[in-house]
Amino acid sequence: MTRVLYDLCGIDEGLRFSPYCWRVRYALAHKGLEVQTRPWHFTDKEALAFASHDKVPVLVDGDEVVTESYEILRYLDRAYPEAPLLGEGLAETRARFFKYYAERSLAPAMLRTIIMDLLNAIHPDDRAYFRETREKRFGRTLEEFHSPAKGLAQLDAALEPLRAQLTDSDFLDGDAPAGADYLVFGNFMWARCVSSADLVSNADPVHGWLERMLDQHGGLGRRALRVTDIEGAYR
Amino acid sequence: MTRVLYDLCGIDEGLRFSPYCWRVRYALAHKGLEVQTRPWHFTDKEALAFASHDKVPVLVDGDEVVTESYEILRYLDRAYPEAPLLGEGLAETRARFFKYYAERSLAPAMLRTIIMDLLNAIHPDDRAYFRETREKRFGRTLEEFHSPAKGLAQLDAALEPLRAQLTDSDFLDGDAPAGADYLVFGNFMWARCVSSADLVSNADPVHGWLERMLDQHGGLGRRALRVTDIEGAYR
Repeated sequence: MTRVLYDLCGIDEGLRFSPYCWRVRYALAHKGLEVQTRPWHFTDKEALAFASHDKVPVLVDGDEVVTESYEILRYLDRAYPEAPLLGEGLAETRARFFKYYAERSLAPAMLRTIIMDLLNAIHPDDRAYFRETREKRFGRTLEEFHSPAKGLAQLDAALEPLRAQLTDSDFLDGDAPAGADYLVFGNFMWARCVSSADLVSNADPVHGWLERMLDQHGGLGRRALRVTDIEGAYR
Repeated sequence: MTRVLYDLCGIDEGLRFSPYCWRVRYALAHKGLEVQTRPWHFTDKEALAFASHDKVPVLVDGDEVVTESYEILRYLDRAYPEAPLLGEGLAETRARFFKYYAERSLAPAMLRTIIMDLLNAIHPDDRAYFRETREKRFGRTLEEFHSPAKGLAQLDAALEPLRAQLTDSDFLDGDAPAGADYLVFGNFMWARCVSSADLVSNADPVHGWLERMLDQHGGLGRRALRVTDIEGAYR
């Protein structure tokens, strides 16, 4: 049986930057599960028709087809109970808060900082779609939305609870990473793959955590292709 | 045996507004434990000498003397394991994030909004101490720090993950409140007791949660004296 993850790619098939797909790739590695990733890009909706879904990640695990990153983590905990990602009861309910913290606090701040880099990194066929959907969402042009100064200030404020947690322990989930770490770290992989922007100073406790996360699971994150690695791609 | 909680009071002995003490009062109620609160104010350091500590909450439970709100919640889970507040393992580690979210994201935003109300509400003997310690911390006068416009904008941004979590479930910890709810709600009791500022619009999912939290444990929060209830106290 081949386990398959549909994974967002950009200007290069090897450039994988979806924060949601990164959550899943780390989660699979956490469980010790092999996966074959299949590159997909935004406008290739037909390729996902089998899943009745129009976004990645989509995980195909034997007969199971699972969509949405958080649901995939839950599925992995059910199907492979060892080494819990989210856990159960209070642990699981609290894990959801990390999902929302990543999506509602960190992501908007990061996006404001890296959106032009993101536009540059995505597949050329996707750019019109990306511009149209995002401009509709923001109510202004990408160029108007783009403001690294505002984004970084917003991010600096949003990182406060993360800093405190990472002063107490090496990982958000304690001595070793688990679901909370992956839910949040996905966003940093997103920024890392498409941009050279320095989001966190190296004196920040978050910086040490990012370095540790990049090294996890055989350097899964550190080995990932960045747009800056592709000749002529980073403008 | 009488269980005693040293609890911060203000201009009136009945005005109890410490966010940390509110965490503990809700936690005790959650466990179904009776407590006698003992009013204490900032500069009354000698009253806490027995605990080798200079801040409230201080809980005296039989032979046990426990300080710091989070440690008190942990103690309560150890001593009275039914109806966990923080839980264990991943649940407990993730609960800490709510503590930091409350203290590092919400509290500064609220403080900026209510600090002059807070100064007004504290015990007259404490005001010089309060001004001196806070001005040192902020590097400016209370009057300069005070900015409801900035504070409310900051709070609005900081509430994003809370809103999302409370759209999924009635309480942060799911169908019923537990430690995460109390860790965060303490800050709202703080603001409620000293100020009439509207921090959250009634269309906000956070508003519904605040109403539910006020009603918990026989209306523990709703019954609390507010500065606006004391004749001539709110200026």
